Amino acid sequence: MVNIITLLTDFGLRDSYVGQLKGALLSRAEQPLQIVDISHEVPPQDIRTGGRLLREASVTYPPGTVHLAVVDPGVGTDRRILAVELAGQRYVLPDNGLLSLLLDDFAVTAAHVVENSRLWRAEPSPTFHGRDIIAPVAVFLAEGGQLAQVGRQAVGLHRLKATVAVPLEDGGWLLEVEGIDHFGNVLMPLGGEQWPDWGELHWLSVELAGGALRLKVVRSYGAAAAGELVVLLGSQGRLELAQVNGSAARTLAIGLGEKVKIRRD
Amino acid sequence: MVNIITLLTDFGLRDSYVGQLKGALLSRAEQPLQIVDISHEVPPQDIRTGGRLLREASVTYPPGTVHLAVVDPGVGTDRRILAVELAGQRYVLPDNGLLSLLLDDFAVTAAHVVENSRLWRAEPSPTFHGRDIIAPVAVFLAEGGQLAQVGRQAVGLHRLKATVAVPLEDGGWLLEVEGIDHFGNVLMPLGGEQWPDWGELHWLSVELAGGALRLKVVRSYGAAAAGELVVLLGSQGRLELAQVNGSAARTLAIGLGEKVKIRRD
Amino acid sequence: MVNIITLLTDFGLRDSYVGQLKGALLSRAEQPLQIVDISHEVPPQDIRTGGRLLREASVTYPPGTVHLAVVDPGVGTDRRILAVELAGQRYVLPDNGLLSLLLDDFAVTAAHVVENSRLWRAEPSPTFHGRDIIAPVAVFLAEGGQLAQVGRQAVGLHRLKATVAVPLEDGGWLLEVEGIDHFGNVLMPLGGEQWPDWGELHWLSVELAGGALRLKVVRSYGAAAAGELVVLLGSQGRLELAQVNGSAARTLAIGLGEKVKIRRD
Repeated sequence: MVNIITLLTDFGLRDSYVGQLKGALLSRAEQPLQIVDISHEVPPQDIRTGGRLLREASVTYPPGTVHLAVVDPGVGTDRRILAVELAGQRYVLPDNGLLSLLLDDFAVTAAHVVENSRLWRAEPSPTFHGRDIIAPVAVFLAEGGQLAQVGRQAVGLHRLKATVAVPLEDGGWLLEVEGIDHFGNVLMPLGGEQWPDWGELHWLSVELAGGALRLKVVRSYGAAAAGELVVLLGSQGRLELAQVNGSAARTLAIGLGEKVKIRRD
Repeated sequence: MVNIITLLTDFGLRDSYVGQLKGALLSRAEQPLQIVDISHEVPPQDIRTGGRLLREASVTYPPGTVHLAVVDPGVGTDRRILAVELAGQRYVLPDNGLLSLLLDDFAVTAAHVVENSRLWRAEPSPTFHGRDIIAPVAVFLAEGGQLAQVGRQAVGLHRLKATVAVPLEDGGWLLEVEGIDHFGNVLMPLGGEQWPDWGELHWLSVELAGGALRLKVVRSYGAAAAGELVVLLGSQGRLELAQVNGSAARTLAIGLGEKVKIRRD
Repeated sequence: MVNIITLLTDFGLRDSYVGQLKGALLSRAEQPLQIVDISHEVPPQDIRTGGRLLREASVTYPPGTVHLAVVDPGVGTDRRILAVELAGQRYVLPDNGLLSLLLDDFAVTAAHVVENSRLWRAEPSPTFHGRDIIAPVAVFLAEGGQLAQVGRQAVGLHRLKATVAVPLEDGGWLLEVEGIDHFGNVLMPLGGEQWPDWGELHWLSVELAGGALRLKVVRSYGAAAAGELVVLLGSQGRLELAQVNGSAARTLAIGLGEKVKIRRD
């Protein structure tokens, strides 16, 4: 099959940066190459959100896919660039925590520091390592290059502090909102498997900064009346607060990083 | 030629949902697959707008293309998923009216209910049928699978109520705005063929909530002075109110679904 | 290798226009075709910005790539459409100045007027030449067609007035902001090579409408404290005002086209 490289960046779509990245990939490629956009709308410099999207999307790809991820406020400083293999996938990205959630869930099978500059564009720009270093290394790997050829083995990969998800004495959880999606769904860092009787729950009580609520537990967004606030397991198998045909985040006036307590009702 | 699957959703580009969808497609594909984005910026849950974009874009693709369309507020409820063939194109999408405009314009050559779960991902998430059901079925069809293999024949396809386009006694029309595009052009549900002497018209009178106007009829956006409000036939052969180098929607303070009367002047 | 066509437009991603363009390309193609989006978020009718993105991105592509660029307020009027070859790349686009920056930097090796209507879609819409004229010509060129076959030789290509970049008597420069990127970086029309001792500079003084500032000169965005305003050479080798982990444009309240004086400090 065709070599695949996915792209995840905070470059946005208004500028030429994504176009330059793709040009660099295609100019370097000696074999047909399928380039797939995961997202370029990671909020600028938001490594935590970028890492979440990378965790969610990358493992859905065929084994051997190369994932190029650039959310890189430290570009041009001495932060390392890594090439990592885990879960049958390969990643080329700055060593700044972007990989944290994948490191939590999968064993690393190889990790190397990107330092073999013969693979790079000559005289890489200190402000665009994505185009000049990461892209050519991604093509090298996609076309059969070995991780060991990009540099020495990497130890001590950078990890972000975990998102808060603390069990409470009463059986509930203190949770930090880990994402607000495009629909206004409020994403919680807790898998349904932590709540073994999930299928039998009908209501949960939710305590927010703005007050307390009782929310219906449903299986899907359409399983309650329009406008109703609900809790369900989203497509990652994790808790979400949602509003049928509406934005739970807007209605609840809740944002990324805020704390919520959730208890059985 | 390479198999083609197009994507039309309301997922937005900020999250990983589009990336997961593409991963699901590529993981399932056994033949090279070209994935083409039509749009992921359909307003959340706006089936009518999604259906309009699907009508406009899908018929420009080579025969045999598979169009995956997900604007699906009823995901996980008992709404059906369909695989439909018309105009030489194939569609996999929820049975919620997304296909209405295409059903108006083309004869269905085959329509089946997507219910053969052997084609799906095991244990599909009730909140992401796009990834777990629709994507694998789209790949199955793109790689030569028959519509009849996805499930029994479908009857009674869901249709939306038609957008208002009523001829008036004086020869004019009462029209409901069917879209506002990115340029601020105001799209009307009326083809130029309804106005047989279109080529000879020079002015139209337009009655809006905010008052009445006399607009010049032109052939192209650049055929009047900057800032001028005009009427023309857009690239679908339908009436548009436009402003040269500006946004007619903003200038006229008019939005989706509003009513307009248009008469010869 | 596979034929490549890149797309740069001001169509936005909300409508079906980009999807129709891709459908037109794929319907016309007789060979496998890789379609690459550079950007569709050029501000509506902003030829100058579109031309800058085209200059930045297109030259990163493999020789022979065809670049389809549509920022075309004059669509349907008598402005010409061109097919141009320079720097080993080929361009199909309206003759309205989109190519200006590339004309400044590279010698044209061939330029022809797109006028051989046998290559076009029959009865092209006067409002969508991108789909009906430019797309089929781009495919024709990508599949080995010669520029001379699209029409007679073009002379007198349209150029925009240059962005202001005037050396001052005191060794400084009067510069017009040529772009604000997604990160809020303020892009200046001046290459580092105009300042031969750039590597030794530590501070610059910058005079804006709102007052004067002394900015640190750094090599990369991460090379100063969070929140600090800096000057550096961006990935095009040109001056940028930036704010570490912030938006310089917002902090300085500066926009496209504004004038700035920059002097050594």
